[in-house]
Amino acid sequence: MIVLLLLVTLCAHGGKGEESAGAPRSGHVSVVIVGGTGDLAKKYLWQGFFELYVHQVGSGNTFSFYGGGLSPADAATPALFEILKAVSCSKDASEERCALLKEQFLRLARYRQLKTLEDYQALAEHIGRELQQEGITEAGRLFYLSLPAFAYVDVADKINRSCRPTGGPWLRVVLEKPFGHDIRSAEVLATQLEGSLKDEEMYRIDHYLGKQVVAKILPFRVENKKFLDPIWNKHHIERVEIVMKETLDVKGRISFYDQYGVIRDVLQNHLTEVMTLLMMRLPTNLSSSEEILQRKLQIFSSMLPLRKNQAVVGQYQAYQTTVQQETNKTKDHVSRTPTYAAVLAHIDEAQYEGVPILLISGKMLDERVGYARILFKNDVFCLQSRDGVHCKPKQIVFYFGHGSLQYPAVLVSKNLFRPVVTDSEWTEVTEHTDVNILGLPISDYYVQTPTEQKEAYSELISQIFAGCKNNFISTENLLASWGLWTPLLNSLAGTYPRIYPGGGDNRDLLDIRVNGKDVGYTREVVIISPEQMGATSANSFQVMQGNFRRADMVSAWPEELVERLAADIQKEAEAAVREGNVFHLAISGGSTPLALFHRLALHHFSFPWSHTHVWMVDERCVPLTEPESNFRGLHDHLLQHVRIPYFNIHPMPVQLNQRLCVEEDRGAALYEKEISGMVHGSSFHFVLLGVGYDGHTASLFPGGKADEVGEGLVALTESPLKPHQRMSLTFSAINRARTVALLVMGKGKHELISQLSRVSDKPDKWPVTGVKPADGRLVWYIDYDALLG
Amino acid sequence: MIVLLLLVTLCAHGGKGEESAGAPRSGHVSVVIVGGTGDLAKKYLWQGFFELYVHQVGSGNTFSFYGGGLSPADAATPALFEILKAVSCSKDASEERCALLKEQFLRLARYRQLKTLEDYQALAEHIGRELQQEGITEAGRLFYLSLPAFAYVDVADKINRSCRPTGGPWLRVVLEKPFGHDIRSAEVLATQLEGSLKDEEMYRIDHYLGKQVVAKILPFRVENKKFLDPIWNKHHIERVEIVMKETLDVKGRISFYDQYGVIRDVLQNHLTEVMTLLMMRLPTNLSSSEEILQRKLQIFSSMLPLRKNQAVVGQYQAYQTTVQQETNKTKDHVSRTPTYAAVLAHIDEAQYEGVPILLISGKMLDERVGYARILFKNDVFCLQSRDGVHCKPKQIVFYFGHGSLQYPAVLVSKNLFRPVVTDSEWTEVTEHTDVNILGLPISDYYVQTPTEQKEAYSELISQIFAGCKNNFISTENLLASWGLWTPLLNSLAGTYPRIYPGGGDNRDLLDIRVNGKDVGYTREVVIISPEQMGATSANSFQVMQGNFRRADMVSAWPEELVERLAADIQKEAEAAVREGNVFHLAISGGSTPLALFHRLALHHFSFPWSHTHVWMVDERCVPLTEPESNFRGLHDHLLQHVRIPYFNIHPMPVQLNQRLCVEEDRGAALYEKEISGMVHGSSFHFVLLGVGYDGHTASLFPGGKADEVGEGLVALTESPLKPHQRMSLTFSAINRARTVALLVMGKGKHELISQLSRVSDKPDKWPVTGVKPADGRLVWYIDYDALLG
Repeated sequence: MIVLLLLVTLCAHGGKGEESAGAPRSGHVSVVIVGGTGDLAKKYLWQGFFELYVHQVGSGNTFSFYGGGLSPADAATPALFEILKAVSCSKDASEERCALLKEQFLRLARYRQLKTLEDYQALAEHIGRELQQEGITEAGRLFYLSLPAFAYVDVADKINRSCRPTGGPWLRVVLEKPFGHDIRSAEVLATQLEGSLKDEEMYRIDHYLGKQVVAKILPFRVENKKFLDPIWNKHHIERVEIVMKETLDVKGRISFYDQYGVIRDVLQNHLTEVMTLLMMRLPTNLSSSEEILQRKLQIFSSMLPLRKNQAVVGQYQAYQTTVQQETNKTKDHVSRTPTYAAVLAHIDEAQYEGVPILLISGKMLDERVGYARILFKNDVFCLQSRDGVHCKPKQIVFYFGHGSLQYPAVLVSKNLFRPVVTDSEWTEVTEHTDVNILGLPISDYYVQTPTEQKEAYSELISQIFAGCKNNFISTENLLASWGLWTPLLNSLAGTYPRIYPGGGDNRDLLDIRVNGKDVGYTREVVIISPEQMGATSANSFQVMQGNFRRADMVSAWPEELVERLAADIQKEAEAAVREGNVFHLAISGGSTPLALFHRLALHHFSFPWSHTHVWMVDERCVPLTEPESNFRGLHDHLLQHVRIPYFNIHPMPVQLNQRLCVEEDRGAALYEKEISGMVHGSSFHFVLLGVGYDGHTASLFPGGKADEVGEGLVALTESPLKPHQRMSLTFSAINRARTVALLVMGKGKHELISQLSRVSDKPDKWPVTGVKPADGRLVWYIDYDALLG
Repeated sequence: MIVLLLLVTLCAHGGKGEESAGAPRSGHVSVVIVGGTGDLAKKYLWQGFFELYVHQVGSGNTFSFYGGGLSPADAATPALFEILKAVSCSKDASEERCALLKEQFLRLARYRQLKTLEDYQALAEHIGRELQQEGITEAGRLFYLSLPAFAYVDVADKINRSCRPTGGPWLRVVLEKPFGHDIRSAEVLATQLEGSLKDEEMYRIDHYLGKQVVAKILPFRVENKKFLDPIWNKHHIERVEIVMKETLDVKGRISFYDQYGVIRDVLQNHLTEVMTLLMMRLPTNLSSSEEILQRKLQIFSSMLPLRKNQAVVGQYQAYQTTVQQETNKTKDHVSRTPTYAAVLAHIDEAQYEGVPILLISGKMLDERVGYARILFKNDVFCLQSRDGVHCKPKQIVFYFGHGSLQYPAVLVSKNLFRPVVTDSEWTEVTEHTDVNILGLPISDYYVQTPTEQKEAYSELISQIFAGCKNNFISTENLLASWGLWTPLLNSLAGTYPRIYPGGGDNRDLLDIRVNGKDVGYTREVVIISPEQMGATSANSFQVMQGNFRRADMVSAWPEELVERLAADIQKEAEAAVREGNVFHLAISGGSTPLALFHRLALHHFSFPWSHTHVWMVDERCVPLTEPESNFRGLHDHLLQHVRIPYFNIHPMPVQLNQRLCVEEDRGAALYEKEISGMVHGSSFHFVLLGVGYDGHTASLFPGGKADEVGEGLVALTESPLKPHQRMSLTFSAINRARTVALLVMGKGKHELISQLSRVSDKPDKWPVTGVKPADGRLVWYIDYDALLG
């Protein structure tokens, strides 16, 4: 354990090359900041590299530093010189030593124009020549791309083609977000970069991971494992809040910002990374970037999908004007880019089931602060007085900085435990000014803070130099994150953000309420959007009832349709359970019912599952565990999420004697026997069907065999599409049901619906027209897309 | 819906006979209070019957009232007269009318000695004679037994033998708690009473159900269904508290109280009834006592068991002295009767999963108050200020009375909703004094209160008269409640209550903390009990490791042993999943592993179930849904509570072709194929075995057949006990496992363990000695009872 912690510390503060694991070769290092006179370089990067240099003096490594840019050298050199002169030493360095170090650093640094491939070639030649002249070994080359993202691919290609060291020395290329705009563009960018750079050569920076408190999250969780293990779960965590509030606006950055917005700018990266650090299963080895990556990916794969019900968005009032000014748009141009967002995430794992995770960030808010707060449930009952410390809120706050505290810290409320912090670079604060942090006076917390505050970029630069990749974003991690956020971004595309005045005037306008798996603003505000002023809003259509093919029809927009169908099924289930203590539900395969399954699984917790038997309408002749299996889909999207007895689940026996749907195995007869043995009169209470483009329903296809229309309840059938072999309920079974629902969704079905509205009953041509319950009821559920085209 | 609510109202205020459902026959009613000069009669009952009389004047019913008792009439008559004179009219009656009504009431009431069977016979004859003389029809006879419980059976027998009206008139007999002392005595009492009285003739009173606010719980839930439906579930409810605090001690009642204590006196009845009203699924018809009963029983059947970890108990300091004084015990007599208890209950239904329900009551506390509070989760995130009403706690409080509010009320915090109360007998309070109720100023609540406060007994008496049984305790309800509480009472039998000083001095001494499914005091206090002073406490033994039959052994007290085994299984599971992404666990049947299943289901939420395959060690040849089936036990106690994929569950195929364990159906071969197809090398990661009194393990019995020891993995075997036919893993399968655990618990196994410690390996005589993993590890888990006897 001690060894493990030691390694951790090494990787976390791995700036000193000689300490880091794997003993990197020492020698000469060339550092190239492409975009070396830009804002970021000026503010953080040169300072970071100076600190690296100071740490490395006497380590056996030597350095040269290059600031690169598009301008010619004579124009840019003075600017670079000004920047370099401004770097500062740490407090403990004497003035004398500082002056000496700065002088050395200035001598090692120079500007180079890096525009064309030839420029890069010339740089490489220059480096090679100097190495040869000095007769020193090369350790590696570090390129820091401080550039707009659109230039990455081109620069990476130039580096690859001209600046790649040969033989032993390493090549490391550092990139700043944005890494794409959505999953597709991120994939494209990743693929393009892979053409020039190996994965281990790329260091994608998220500077949040360099913040001392963020970097402390995992070590803190390990050090305090014995306190946290019993409470770090759904039984104890009330909710998690990850918040980054800013007071600034985005003036001067609109051309970038308006394309991205707060979700892409902050939530997809900074806040998501913090979330994975908080929620991931602890790796056994904190210095294994591979293991950490796997644990992170596990979190992404178990997150519930994010859609527009999981987010609220806002935009500060002055934003529109700034957009018009900075982008020369006309007055009627309306930007829907959010500058505020609050998103509700859930991790669908037993440990965290139902724990709300809020990710919140915005510009022009009332204060500048960043923190992650784990609020625990109120597990104390105070019989008499409610003033004691154990009656107060329990929480752990990772306070990134600013706000009322003004310094980074890890805060643990005293009614939880006294945290163990073994790292000598952290210290406990015991003298406090009178300040209140998230509902508790500071004196009610144990407070740990770094002994010395360090810039995130300096930390990360020393880690890049040490070849320590824990705190950088791997391609897999990046794509998993975009995989999470892209569907939300898409579903928000048409949403008008709530307009807020900015600063303290926002009052409670941006407060949010968690409602089950959904989130919304607490205050209702009527938002007049240009579209809404013109025509009736789409939302004013609600659920409509009518007739289709002489049967009942319910129609609505997709989301409302699914809500209605789910509610109707629950109603029938409750009636059946009241009447006979059992509900028999037969369900079709395919992708259409997936939204229904989600609705039932996540919103209908009072559904009488313990009295419900689930049957299959049809099945593909593949093993039940295959992704193609209808049962597999039903299992993964519904059954796995509800508490239904094992005995009530009735997959079709498509696999018997280790082969699939062979007549002699008599699987259809077996299922028929099971139905007639358990379902009264073989009459299901509810049968859910879909309909295919060719008019097929269940697995009853046009031109089907005679036995599909005979007396049997179950038949082997043949599909024109792969896999051809199917098992299906027959018309005879379907038409015995009490209620049959036909769910039809999507614009693609519009033509079919038009045809079906005209044709008469011809089950051999349009199998769905053979659905005519003898004593039961048929209801079509058709969404507006399918109905209206 | 309107009709339904109307019926409700009728039954709730059914005092007026003419209004009640089912049109009871009118005529003469004889009311007999047996124990008619006792405390309860004096304080509540005569007043209740007077009110009944006042309501019934002019209804067509006539009355006579008898106060019965053991004393002769001449001695008791003046005492009864004094009581009767003290009854009072409601405020709206004029003085004149009141005097008239009281005079009439006095004339209709008289005392009778009711001691012997002859006394009862004489009463019956007297009633009969009067009816005949007056020439009036009889409506019914109402006996109110205001007696010590030990007299019930005898009096009920006398009533049955002599006072039962013949033909049409009804007989109703009212009983007061205690109805038994535990499940057994309650069953005995119920059976004995059934010998004399029909179920519909018995009215068991719990006066809490007559309290106006308690009686309002169900109607309130119905009236506010649209607000409550979305929030009345685990996603929104933080916890439920049902509290009855008293300031009084039990002086003068010790001979009764010391036998019962606070759990039997308050929790088992009053608080439990309130809990069922709060948590039951809403009946479709509020006036159907049968439906309400079924919903209540459903709550009882889905409650997690209560054991000593679900309770804390206390006793006020002066109690011991009072016990010594009132029962003439010696100084060294120590009563462990609790006068304070806090119990943590959980309802194991999807709707309420994980919601803590606290039932708390005590004597000698700081205030007198009774309430049920539903505290909702903090679902609002206040971005800026935390002072707005929507940032405050959300709660609904059913306030039974007393306390700082001083009147009964239903309180809904304003950040929830404005409640609908349709009943004209309730009114909204809008003018408040400055008082704080459970963390919120009264002005932050919507407050509803009854227009007129009524005594619980008067309410219940009018319901008895109306024949409305909703608010009385049926036998089934009573036994279900005792079924819940008896195991807790038993497991607390040896526990010393924490001593508390009483009143405000208790400070935080009785505060409690919920920890998962357990509850404990927040403050640690060393309690010196007489036993602890003498010898080392049993708890100082912890888990012990050693050897048994040349294999590893873990031994501990039962609870710790199960905790350790569960932790060991999880460790192996995690290692297997790390290594190969899958964990194969084979589990035995029988009752011994049930505690383990509970432990795994309720405490090991991070168990890697999604990667675990569960196999059966052995199975009885019965359908899997039968209670006798090993799989059924495993399913109900473990599988149903964890999220494990359907495909990972492998019951033994004991039923094929609709018959059980027939050789030709080749079920054993089928299971063997399944194992060898899925489990690498057919080597389970973990096999959990038990051992029977005869030394059998799995379903491998002494003198078993050859194939049980052959190469096959699965065999049909024969048990000396019913059901004889079994399917079992063979030694060959068991001994291929990586780890085999043998769990042995209970004093009953001590002799076997002694024998096994001596005998050599003789699998034909002692099958368990055949368990010898070839390359794996065998660990015996033996509790101290089995090890030490």
